[in-house]
Amino acid sequence: MSSNNLDLIDRLRSAVGAAGLVLEKEAKAAYETDWLQKWTGLSSVVVRPANTQETAEVMRICHETHTPVVIQGGNTGMSGGATPDTSGAQVILSMVRMNAIRNVDPLNNTLTAESGVILANIQAAAQEANRYFPLSLGAEGSCTIGGNLATNAGGIAVLRYGNARELVLGLEVVLPDGRIWNGMRALRKDNTGYDLRDLFVGSEGTLGVITAAVLKLHAKPIARATAWVGAESVDALIRLLAQMREVCGERLVAFEMISEESLDLILEHVADVRAPLANSHPFNALIELSDTQEQGLADLLESSLGDALEGGMIQDVVVSQTNGQTQAFWKIREGISQAQVRAGKAVKHDIALPISAIPAFVRGADVAVRKALPGAQIINFGHLGDGNLHYNVLLPLDSSPEAYAATTAKLNRVVHDIVSVANGSISAEHGVGQLRRDELRHYKSEVEFDLMLRIKQSLDPNHIMNPGKLI
Amino acid sequence: MSSNNLDLIDRLRSAVGAAGLVLEKEAKAAYETDWLQKWTGLSSVVVRPANTQETAEVMRICHETHTPVVIQGGNTGMSGGATPDTSGAQVILSMVRMNAIRNVDPLNNTLTAESGVILANIQAAAQEANRYFPLSLGAEGSCTIGGNLATNAGGIAVLRYGNARELVLGLEVVLPDGRIWNGMRALRKDNTGYDLRDLFVGSEGTLGVITAAVLKLHAKPIARATAWVGAESVDALIRLLAQMREVCGERLVAFEMISEESLDLILEHVADVRAPLANSHPFNALIELSDTQEQGLADLLESSLGDALEGGMIQDVVVSQTNGQTQAFWKIREGISQAQVRAGKAVKHDIALPISAIPAFVRGADVAVRKALPGAQIINFGHLGDGNLHYNVLLPLDSSPEAYAATTAKLNRVVHDIVSVANGSISAEHGVGQLRRDELRHYKSEVEFDLMLRIKQSLDPNHIMNPGKLI
Repeated sequence: MSSNNLDLIDRLRSAVGAAGLVLEKEAKAAYETDWLQKWTGLSSVVVRPANTQETAEVMRICHETHTPVVIQGGNTGMSGGATPDTSGAQVILSMVRMNAIRNVDPLNNTLTAESGVILANIQAAAQEANRYFPLSLGAEGSCTIGGNLATNAGGIAVLRYGNARELVLGLEVVLPDGRIWNGMRALRKDNTGYDLRDLFVGSEGTLGVITAAVLKLHAKPIARATAWVGAESVDALIRLLAQMREVCGERLVAFEMISEESLDLILEHVADVRAPLANSHPFNALIELSDTQEQGLADLLESSLGDALEGGMIQDVVVSQTNGQTQAFWKIREGISQAQVRAGKAVKHDIALPISAIPAFVRGADVAVRKALPGAQIINFGHLGDGNLHYNVLLPLDSSPEAYAATTAKLNRVVHDIVSVANGSISAEHGVGQLRRDELRHYKSEVEFDLMLRIKQSLDPNHIMNPGKLI
Repeated sequence: MSSNNLDLIDRLRSAVGAAGLVLEKEAKAAYETDWLQKWTGLSSVVVRPANTQETAEVMRICHETHTPVVIQGGNTGMSGGATPDTSGAQVILSMVRMNAIRNVDPLNNTLTAESGVILANIQAAAQEANRYFPLSLGAEGSCTIGGNLATNAGGIAVLRYGNARELVLGLEVVLPDGRIWNGMRALRKDNTGYDLRDLFVGSEGTLGVITAAVLKLHAKPIARATAWVGAESVDALIRLLAQMREVCGERLVAFEMISEESLDLILEHVADVRAPLANSHPFNALIELSDTQEQGLADLLESSLGDALEGGMIQDVVVSQTNGQTQAFWKIREGISQAQVRAGKAVKHDIALPISAIPAFVRGADVAVRKALPGAQIINFGHLGDGNLHYNVLLPLDSSPEAYAATTAKLNRVVHDIVSVANGSISAEHGVGQLRRDELRHYKSEVEFDLMLRIKQSLDPNHIMNPGKLI
């Protein structure tokens, strides 16, 4: 360890105390590898500030010493955005000790939390106040709200409630130079200047440290109605989606698509699931309505799907009659990750398209992928209601790391070229991090990249915030 | 006219053609004074580009020549943001010729429009496609969508659908140096870098020229139910609001508050309106539900307000039984502007607060205003559901301009000091423009102002975009 580094550690210790530093190699290791064990790096030290002032002091020191900083929440990211590089020069700034819920205001429908609060704890606190915080995703038991906001997390309730961006009203941010921006406004309307909040949301730790947020709460749904649908084509599902939105309005909370090949994979590899419908169908959808009123909800779902069935838009449907059946439907949908892990190595895509462009995309991508990789096993599923597909390709479990990497690069290019032509997104909800950084530079227009660089330069002139990620 | 200016005009003519220039003094005058006739200025020329390329060429010329530019849509702003200064050096860039609706995509629930399209025409195009564009405000027959986005317009449907910001997915922007940023993404999810879109939304023409936008459409409501409520206090109305959100969820589309004094003013000065309730109440609310389903909506409104009445939360209620009655309720609410103009000179405030902080604000502000101006006539009304009050004070019609200006400055400070302490906003939906520019500098934190300045500098280094406004 250089004397410069020893000096840095001393200064950081004076900022956060000995309890706020992790220096031992084994203890640091838990922060240096992401949960997917896909990315790994080395840090000079892990700093765990207990409050905003300490965070500000840490950033002031790093700014002055030009020390690169990687911010980390629950370490559950999908794109390696919170893992340091291998230089050993980067400081990991872990926000997990800032885990207080500062305030719940049911009259204003807001909840104020520090960035290290675990998402599930926010959901529970909202519930306790007879409100609802709709952000929900697989990692909710360990991801933090700061990470959710820094990556603009999506999840399973975006169709009605929007991404994390739409669920935040105010932010507190420690800037790269250690100043504190107090943007903790709990307001639905505020037209007093540039929207700084949304600049930090989704910036993946490259512009500042989110230390706290004012979150929007919603009315708690007390009823839900769920169905499983089989259809001939994705075109049919998209027409059904449009029709259900017309008829059900904001009640429509989930419209998840699962291709036949995806369903077969789940049925083969996940325990205790069975096919909801008697026959196989090229495309399936899990559809859910929810409401603050019980009355009429199940009837609405049954009648709208009954109409679609009679009209030949869909081939089969089963409406859940019990909570157990509803859970069974969701278990199938949520089993897809496990099924993929067990069945092979997935080349992943997290893409978004205009919903009307999805049928053409699926046809075009299926052909192009099978041309690039004859016999490819395409696992196509996702949040159809958001235009967000996880269009994955499964390689054999025994693929060598080299073969997997080469095929991934090849198929990513094939799929993302088609997405790009359709004016879609190559990262719908998983962010850029390390995973898509080179691709981002390839697909973003020069003008857009220049705008991003100008903003980065203006807020982080020493380029210490999460170098090697996103931009 | 200087030779430099003649040269500029020649260059602009070559960019937009003779048809794209307005040079005559009388013709320019219509652009040089805002609709409220509150602000007036002088322009060197009014330029009306027909398309994005022409707009880009105009900006390239202005950037090179350091010519200041004021962008204008329907000229219906509330804060003088689209009116030039009196130097005669500023170019007005009028977007009204860019008035094409480029695309309506019902399957994707999007509509793509150029920035000069009048809001009402967008509403109509959505309607024609059996969809709904919820942005709605008094000026909708003449304001343009570009202006709505540049000012992040609010209006009467924010409670359910959000501000203009929440209704846009993608933007096309001509940058201050004439480059075109194509951010026309019609996607619900896109996590590929900084949120540039929301930086331009609400920037009041100080960062770039919005030339087109992809707008979000919603399901068309087919049923509405409306009521008028009388209550003892604003506290009671806020409890009612919270209860109605719990029970009605997203059906609740309007919760407008009108104080007794405001209602009296309307009844006195607006023709063909009458009090909805037999007795006077300190506070009134106009409440509306809407839904994509007819069934049960009226019952839901009646039962929830019936419960509130029985529980003593409110003192009286009338639920509209006919379309005519609903229109009569809204006529009262919308008559407030006219009533104020007829009755006096209004010292205006357009403030937002956490909803839970409104009762204390009203009590504190009432006392402080009456202390500053004994006998003040306080006209307090607004979008209670959004925490947005138009807390105005009416001065006599015969107040001298000097007395009006002095009292305005005095009361603005009194009211905005209280708003500021409550962590509220001094401009909820009307923006900053010229009107609140000095106040913004007074109330914004130094850190926030510095962040805004850095962004301004990075995107508009020659400071040609709408100088004298906002920042």
